[in-house]
Amino acid sequence: MFKTALIVGAGSGLSASLTRLFAKENMQVALAARSPDRLAEFTKSTGAKIFKCDVGRHDEVETLFKNVETAIGAPDVVIYNPSYRVRGPLIDLDPVEVEKTIAITAFGGFLVAQAAVRRMLPKGQGAVIFTGASASVKGYALSAPFAMGKFALRGLAQSMARELQPQGVHVAHVVVDGGIRSSRRAEPPDRPDSLLDPDAIAENYLHLLRQPRNAWSWEIEVRPWVEKF
Amino acid sequence: MFKTALIVGAGSGLSASLTRLFAKENMQVALAARSPDRLAEFTKSTGAKIFKCDVGRHDEVETLFKNVETAIGAPDVVIYNPSYRVRGPLIDLDPVEVEKTIAITAFGGFLVAQAAVRRMLPKGQGAVIFTGASASVKGYALSAPFAMGKFALRGLAQSMARELQPQGVHVAHVVVDGGIRSSRRAEPPDRPDSLLDPDAIAENYLHLLRQPRNAWSWEIEVRPWVEKF
Amino acid sequence: MFKTALIVGAGSGLSASLTRLFAKENMQVALAARSPDRLAEFTKSTGAKIFKCDVGRHDEVETLFKNVETAIGAPDVVIYNPSYRVRGPLIDLDPVEVEKTIAITAFGGFLVAQAAVRRMLPKGQGAVIFTGASASVKGYALSAPFAMGKFALRGLAQSMARELQPQGVHVAHVVVDGGIRSSRRAEPPDRPDSLLDPDAIAENYLHLLRQPRNAWSWEIEVRPWVEKF
Amino acid sequence: MFKTALIVGAGSGLSASLTRLFAKENMQVALAARSPDRLAEFTKSTGAKIFKCDVGRHDEVETLFKNVETAIGAPDVVIYNPSYRVRGPLIDLDPVEVEKTIAITAFGGFLVAQAAVRRMLPKGQGAVIFTGASASVKGYALSAPFAMGKFALRGLAQSMARELQPQGVHVAHVVVDGGIRSSRRAEPPDRPDSLLDPDAIAENYLHLLRQPRNAWSWEIEVRPWVEKF
Repeated sequence: MFKTALIVGAGSGLSASLTRLFAKENMQVALAARSPDRLAEFTKSTGAKIFKCDVGRHDEVETLFKNVETAIGAPDVVIYNPSYRVRGPLIDLDPVEVEKTIAITAFGGFLVAQAAVRRMLPKGQGAVIFTGASASVKGYALSAPFAMGKFALRGLAQSMARELQPQGVHVAHVVVDGGIRSSRRAEPPDRPDSLLDPDAIAENYLHLLRQPRNAWSWEIEVRPWVEKF
Repeated sequence: MFKTALIVGAGSGLSASLTRLFAKENMQVALAARSPDRLAEFTKSTGAKIFKCDVGRHDEVETLFKNVETAIGAPDVVIYNPSYRVRGPLIDLDPVEVEKTIAITAFGGFLVAQAAVRRMLPKGQGAVIFTGASASVKGYALSAPFAMGKFALRGLAQSMARELQPQGVHVAHVVVDGGIRSSRRAEPPDRPDSLLDPDAIAENYLHLLRQPRNAWSWEIEVRPWVEKF
Repeated sequence: MFKTALIVGAGSGLSASLTRLFAKENMQVALAARSPDRLAEFTKSTGAKIFKCDVGRHDEVETLFKNVETAIGAPDVVIYNPSYRVRGPLIDLDPVEVEKTIAITAFGGFLVAQAAVRRMLPKGQGAVIFTGASASVKGYALSAPFAMGKFALRGLAQSMARELQPQGVHVAHVVVDGGIRSSRRAEPPDRPDSLLDPDAIAENYLHLLRQPRNAWSWEIEVRPWVEKF
Repeated sequence: MFKTALIVGAGSGLSASLTRLFAKENMQVALAARSPDRLAEFTKSTGAKIFKCDVGRHDEVETLFKNVETAIGAPDVVIYNPSYRVRGPLIDLDPVEVEKTIAITAFGGFLVAQAAVRRMLPKGQGAVIFTGASASVKGYALSAPFAMGKFALRGLAQSMARELQPQGVHVAHVVVDGGIRSSRRAEPPDRPDSLLDPDAIAENYLHLLRQPRNAWSWEIEVRPWVEKF
C-alpha cells in the first residue's frame, strides 16, 4: 500500500475527509491550498503538513513538490481537487474569469500531474486521482466555463491513463455527481442522504488506491440514491 | 451490511471469487447455474447452496427465487453474470444463436432482476449488480450478437438505476474490460498481471455493496494496467 | 446515387416521409409493414411497393427480401424503423411483452440487416440506416424494455459499422431525440416547432446516403431546438 | 438560408472548402487567420474577405468581429476551426505549449462564440459550428494537451447548445475522425478514399446549416470508410 499522499485543493470537505482517511491508513499526508492559514487547526489534529500553492502557476507547483518531498518524501499518491467556476449566460461571461476557470480546474491539473508523474515513473508505481463533477460528462446550460474545465480535466485523465498505466502509474477520474454535504449545506429532513457525504466519497478514493494493477478502474461515478441523472 | 446473496451464472471464475468473498463476509450465498453438477466440490468448501436454472426461461427463474428464499431467505444481493456469445461475419450468423445470445446475456438479466426487485422493494433495500464487458460500451466487428446483448443489459441497468435507486435498491453495472485469468488461461511471463484476476474484480463488487446510499456508483470499469482501451 | 430502397416499419410518419423523399430522388421504394392494408392509398400516390412482414420472424424476413428483389431488385438502401415498447414499473412488466419489445426493436433489426448485407456485399456497396431514439443512449426510468431494445440496436449498428464499412457498406444510426409531429400529435401554439417534423428527419437520412465513402457518419442525432437533453 | 458567414482558422483545407461551398450558396464569407498573407490568391478567386486574428486574444477577437460587421455584416454563421497541439510524453511537455494548445483549441472557441452569439441573439437566429477531432471523445496516449483542448471545446459546444438553441441559435459539434487529404498528404493507391476529403466534410456543415429548427443536430461524426474506431 502507498505511504505518502499529496492532496491538492485542500479547502473542500472532500480533502478533509481524504486527509483523515489516509492518516488512519498510516499514510503521510501533505495538503496544498491557496489559502492554508485557516487549516492550522485541522493539520494539528491529523498530522498533515500544509503548503501554500496557486495551482495555475508552474513555478508554485514546482516549489510545492520540492517542499513536499522534503517534508514527507515524494508522494506515492496525488489527488487533484481544485476547481473554480463562473456561471451565467454565455454573452455575459467575463473572459478573464473563464480563463481562470480553465486554469484552476484543468491546467493546474496538468501541472500537478506532470510534477507527480515525474516522481512516480522512476519507481514504476504511484496513483493520480482527479476529482470530476456532473459537468465532466454533461455540459449544462449557463455553465460553459465549468464544462470546459471539467471536460478538459477528464480528457487529461483519459490520455494519462492510456499513456502511464502500462508504466505502472494508476490514473483515475471520479465523477462526483451531486451536491456535497458540508457545514454550510445540509439536506432537508424529508430528503435524507440526498447529499453526498465527503467521507463516503473518500472511501471510493481509498478503494481505487487498493486496487491491484490487474484490475484498475479508470473512471467511477458516485451520486446520492435520489439524485436525478 | 447485506446478509444473503444470489449469484447467477455460477460457471465463471468471477462467480467463484464472489462466492468465497461473500462467504468470508458471513453472507449466506446461493449459486444458480445451468449445469450445477460440477460445482459440488466447490459448494462443499464454501457452504454455498447451489441451484439449477436456465436464466432465459421465466418459469425457471421464478422457481429459482422460490427455492433460494426457502434455502437462505430472499436475497439482499443479486449478481447477474451469465453471458453467451456467437461470433463471426454478420452474414454467417445463425439467427437462433443470435436469439440465444440476447436471451442469456440480456433477457435473463431482466427476468432475474424483476424477481430480485420484487423481493427488495418491500424492504426498501437491496442491491443488483450486472456484469458487463468491453462490448457493453463498444460494439466490436464480427461480434454483433454480443454487442446487442451487452448493450441491452447496460440499458436495463441504467433504466433500473433511475427507477429503483430512489426506492432504496442500489443498481450497478461493472464493465469488465479485459481477459480474465482462469485455470485455462494465464498471462505470458513477459506480461505479468495482463489478465484480470477474478478475486480482484470481486473486490469491486464488495466495494459497491458497502457504499452508503448517499454515495452510490452506478457504473465502474476495471481493466488490467496494460490493457489497450 | 442509390436506386432502390427498402423501408421497414412502414407505419410511421418517418417512413412515409422517407418514401416520398426517395421517390422524388427517383429511387424505387419498397415498404414493409406488419399491417400493410391501410397503406394502399399511400402506395398509389408514391408508386411504392408494399409488403407484409413480421420483422421478428426469420422466415418472414427471408420472404420479404425475395419478394422485394423480384419487385424492385435487391435494395441498395435499407432503413430499419420498427420499434415496440411496453412501459411501467420493472416489477409489473409482463415478460412476454418485454421479449416482444426486444424482438421487434432489436432482433428484427439483425434479421433485416443480415438479409440486406448479404445482397450488398457482393456489390461492395449499399447503406443500412437504423432509427434510434432518446432511449438509445439514455435508459429512462419506467422504460427498461425500450432501453434494452434500443441500446441493443445501437450495439448492432456500431458492430456492423466496424465490420462492414471497410467492405463498402455504409451503416448509420440516427438518434431521434424528441417527439414527432403526426396527424394525431401537434405542438401547442406557444411552442412552435417543438416536435420533430418527419420530413425534416428524413432529410438527414438522405444526407447520409449522399455522403461519399471518404466521409461517412456513423451516428447523427436530431432534436427540436427547444428539446431538453 | 443564411447570408453571411465567418470562418475562423482559415489555414486548413476544410476552411478553404467551406469558403468555396458557402460562396457557391451565395453567402458573403469572411475568413480569419493568424497569417492571412498567403491567402491573397484564394480570396481573389472566392470573393471572401480576409482578416488577421489571434483567436486566443480577447481584444483581437473583438476587433475581428467589428471589422467583419463592417465588411459583410454581422455573420449569421460562425465556424470555429483553429487548433494547435503539442505531443509527447506527459513528463516532457512544455507547460507554455500546453497552455497555448488549450488557448487556441478551446479558449479561442469561447471568445469567438461569445462575440458571435452576442450578434445572433437579438435576431433570434444564427449558427455556430465547432470542428472537433477524434481527440474530442477519446484521450489518446502521448497527446494530453490536445485531449484537454478538444474535450473542453466539446464541453463548450454542449453547454451552448443547451443554453442557446431554445433562443434560436443552432450550435453543433463535428467530430472529424480521421486524417484529412491535402496538398501535402494523399492516401496510398491501395487505400483509396482512406483520407477525409475536405469538400466532403464541408458538405456536412452545409447540411447542418440547412436543418430547420425542429430537427437540429448537435453532434455529427465523419470518418473514412476504412478508418478504425
